[in-house]
Amino acid sequence: MPEHLGTHILLDLYECEQDLNNETVIKEIMIAAALEAKTTVLHSYSHKFSPQGVSCIVVIAESHLSIHTWPEFKQAQVDVFTCGNNALPQVATNCITTALKAKRTVAYQQYRGAIDRQTSNCKLFERIQARQV
Amino acid sequence: MPEHLGTHILLDLYECEQDLNNETVIKEIMIAAALEAKTTVLHSYSHKFSPQGVSCIVVIAESHLSIHTWPEFKQAQVDVFTCGNNALPQVATNCITTALKAKRTVAYQQYRGAIDRQTSNCKLFERIQARQV
Repeated sequence: MPEHLGTHILLDLYECEQDLNNETVIKEIMIAAALEAKTTVLHSYSHKFSPQGVSCIVVIAESHLSIHTWPEFKQAQVDVFTCGNNALPQVATNCITTALKAKRTVAYQQYRGAIDRQTSNCKLFERIQARQV
Repeated sequence: MPEHLGTHILLDLYECEQDLNNETVIKEIMIAAALEAKTTVLHSYSHKFSPQGVSCIVVIAESHLSIHTWPEFKQAQVDVFTCGNNALPQVATNCITTALKAKRTVAYQQYRGAIDRQTSNCKLFERIQARQV
């Protein structure tokens, strides 16, 4: 039984060889990563900046994925936040790292939403699983 | 001149007295926080789960804000990610904390996207400011 509601991974990608200015490709990569991570996609949105850069958010039943790219620096900042015990956030970050052909990565992982098992008085797994879209 | 592209704040809110199940209120709080933080809102999306819980994402020109609420635990997990030097991410997190009437908070701050000043060969501020929606 977990003591936190979710896992949040912040991932900085450096020296990316993928085209970080291609909004369509970036969005496809993010949605594919969400699906590979066994999450349920609710919504996606992307925006292309001028002259360069893409932001993309994928809202999932288990929380969200995001990316913000900086082609001029060959960098992207990603976050993958998943709640529950079925999602595989590390799979998502691995997919994105590979797809963006990043030569160097820095990742931070943080557990979110501590649960006091003694006072929560609930079966956490069942509560999380019961949450329906 | 900053050595990072952005600032990412992860904020866990506990013992929230605000109605965490009211999708309209949660969305209004998030958009208001984005505006108070001097950011430019590009897009917002919210989703109400059954039987309870709300997710809301606000995409801003400077990156994004998100919230995922758990009314059954009186908890919400927030993240505010802003790039550039004009946005005020701490103002956003303060607004959200106040609006949700959280009695206890845990915050983590992480700088994102390190810039090597010697090799980036650019005026970082100007590059960030030049990025247009």
